[in-house]
Amino acid sequence: MTKLIEYEQASDEVRSVYDDIRATRKTDYINNFWKAIANHPPTLHRTWQAVKEVMTAPGELDPLTRELIYIAVSVTTGCEYCIASHTAAGRAKGMSDEMFGELMAIVATANMTNRLANGYRIPVDDQFQT
Amino acid sequence: MTKLIEYEQASDEVRSVYDDIRATRKTDYINNFWKAIANHPPTLHRTWQAVKEVMTAPGELDPLTRELIYIAVSVTTGCEYCIASHTAAGRAKGMSDEMFGELMAIVATANMTNRLANGYRIPVDDQFQT
Amino acid sequence: MTKLIEYEQASDEVRSVYDDIRATRKTDYINNFWKAIANHPPTLHRTWQAVKEVMTAPGELDPLTRELIYIAVSVTTGCEYCIASHTAAGRAKGMSDEMFGELMAIVATANMTNRLANGYRIPVDDQFQT
Amino acid sequence: MTKLIEYEQASDEVRSVYDDIRATRKTDYINNFWKAIANHPPTLHRTWQAVKEVMTAPGELDPLTRELIYIAVSVTTGCEYCIASHTAAGRAKGMSDEMFGELMAIVATANMTNRLANGYRIPVDDQFQT
Amino acid sequence: MTKLIEYEQASDEVRSVYDDIRATRKTDYINNFWKAIANHPPTLHRTWQAVKEVMTAPGELDPLTRELIYIAVSVTTGCEYCIASHTAAGRAKGMSDEMFGELMAIVATANMTNRLANGYRIPVDDQFQT
Amino acid sequence: MTKLIEYEQASDEVRSVYDDIRATRKTDYINNFWKAIANHPPTLHRTWQAVKEVMTAPGELDPLTRELIYIAVSVTTGCEYCIASHTAAGRAKGMSDEMFGELMAIVATANMTNRLANGYRIPVDDQFQT
Repeated sequence: MTKLIEYEQASDEVRSVYDDIRATRKTDYINNFWKAIANHPPTLHRTWQAVKEVMTAPGELDPLTRELIYIAVSVTTGCEYCIASHTAAGRAKGMSDEMFGELMAIVATANMTNRLANGYRIPVDDQFQT
Repeated sequence: MTKLIEYEQASDEVRSVYDDIRATRKTDYINNFWKAIANHPPTLHRTWQAVKEVMTAPGELDPLTRELIYIAVSVTTGCEYCIASHTAAGRAKGMSDEMFGELMAIVATANMTNRLANGYRIPVDDQFQT
Repeated sequence: MTKLIEYEQASDEVRSVYDDIRATRKTDYINNFWKAIANHPPTLHRTWQAVKEVMTAPGELDPLTRELIYIAVSVTTGCEYCIASHTAAGRAKGMSDEMFGELMAIVATANMTNRLANGYRIPVDDQFQT
Repeated sequence: MTKLIEYEQASDEVRSVYDDIRATRKTDYINNFWKAIANHPPTLHRTWQAVKEVMTAPGELDPLTRELIYIAVSVTTGCEYCIASHTAAGRAKGMSDEMFGELMAIVATANMTNRLANGYRIPVDDQFQT
Repeated sequence: MTKLIEYEQASDEVRSVYDDIRATRKTDYINNFWKAIANHPPTLHRTWQAVKEVMTAPGELDPLTRELIYIAVSVTTGCEYCIASHTAAGRAKGMSDEMFGELMAIVATANMTNRLANGYRIPVDDQFQT
Repeated sequence: MTKLIEYEQASDEVRSVYDDIRATRKTDYINNFWKAIANHPPTLHRTWQAVKEVMTAPGELDPLTRELIYIAVSVTTGCEYCIASHTAAGRAKGMSDEMFGELMAIVATANMTNRLANGYRIPVDDQFQT
């Protein structure tokens, strides 16, 4: 397992990212993901900037929809940590049991039809090309 | 490439699925996906029932959100046909250029953090376990 | 695209693999896969040995079943070349349209339930652990 | 982890699926997969219908071959639960140690050649296009 | 296909990224990847910053090794565009035919052993846990 | 879990592979991967030959670079065992914490841009086609 970098042991560079995570999320809790990638400060800094931007910057997709998309990817790739953490984040943003059930149903069905499209080697319809 | 089954050549069993696709989608157009899997009627029937149910049954997720999730999966697995067809479906349901851009940004970022979580072998936080 | 190494231009090392492919498969045709990886002769040699061994060595699985498994993997990973070539190989070994349809149905369903198991984070039953 | 729905706590809708699983499989045991997806009854119902149909409906592929294909997919996507449960199912249907070994060898080899085909960007042979 | 944003039509925000790509790479050529994601300027900006940083910032891995790693990922996920573009980038940085052959051999072998480890459900050795 | 075959219980065929692993790696330790696949001796033999050849045969890529590539694949597919074992192997061959951090950053970024290329359906530039 990777050593987790706690706030107390962290460099100023790492602490300033942790401080921004706490301020942005309005919680003192820093989850293990950030403490692990803090072993490489440029990765911590760049990754947090990306996640903060795509998940919290003003836009046309609401915060819950963004989490549903994040979970869909994580379930498809099979990333256990990401499924656990983003399911928790989704629930904190209002994902109900029913929404989670519908989300899983779509993710499962899409993975099914993706393989039918692969296997039957289906040519893309002209009207989908534009 | 797989032979595409046109309505005119189709068996009654296949035609009844095509009829339901047309009625449900309010369009005469049957896209190639269905014409390809119609080579195996039980697969056509079961797959259409599943897609119809998860994409159109009443629920807590709106139709556009469901398409965004479908696209997220298809982009992650790299299914070219599915990306093309569901991007078209998303646009028909109101997906703007900006929404598509935000969607791609989240899908890309999630695929990035999924691998960081894998590579750093990060233990799931206790509070995400419940 | 990768340069394809034809028999006439090939080194003796590559030719001897081509000769063995022809003898094993009882056909003069060398498909593009081998002509492409022939750019790196050790890879050609090792890969052919592996494919020959797992697909043609005496064993408990018959040749058609072996092709079905190969197609299942190729459809799941989305390798277009491999889907095309192993579907052709399957047909040459007796795969009927109905078998192909059943195969696709299982591959699609497995990809679906794989994601449900991921997403619901299902603990493995004790009786499956032994 | 997801809450597992036991028969005693289940709704009539869920119980009727559990009853059909028991009758179809001729065992009282309901494995965790079904108890987990029972949290969303439409998913339980639809998924069981699909699995029952593709794995037990009369067809040209025998039950053991169907399990081998299911395992091939699950190993390729890396779904731990599915590997464990379908390996157990395969053994119950007659998969010997030797068959499992041959299956793994093919799955591994196919994953290897899939990437060689990707990396060398090999054009599909004309004769595989039809 | 996605509309490609040419320099002439680009906003100032997009042009400044294109200018930086040109300056960093010492070439006027902007490849299609950047022209496509320029449809969503925040994604263009963030993605270029990330690629620039991980591929060109001073570090312990040399530029060619970085390209080999990039190709390894792209071949494993099956991203045709990325395989083509990073193979070209690798050659520009000194990747010989022999190196490419060795790279493909390792990528293929790793994909093979990854599935053997999945399928045999192998417990991680204690000495690899620290 | 799979039964691990210890040297003492192993057949002569398996022992001779174990002996070669020990001699090649200059250590008595046989890690669990080999003990698991030893359940199917032809797979053990073939897999060891492949790994030995691609990882230790003379070539243009140095041993550490080969391990970095192996880790990149394993992180992308999410193979926990392989990530753990090859990270340990990388460290034994000189991979520093900084190198590991740079490696993870590239793997993560490549997985991100792979999906952007998929989702935007970007045509391959002519100059990358040759």
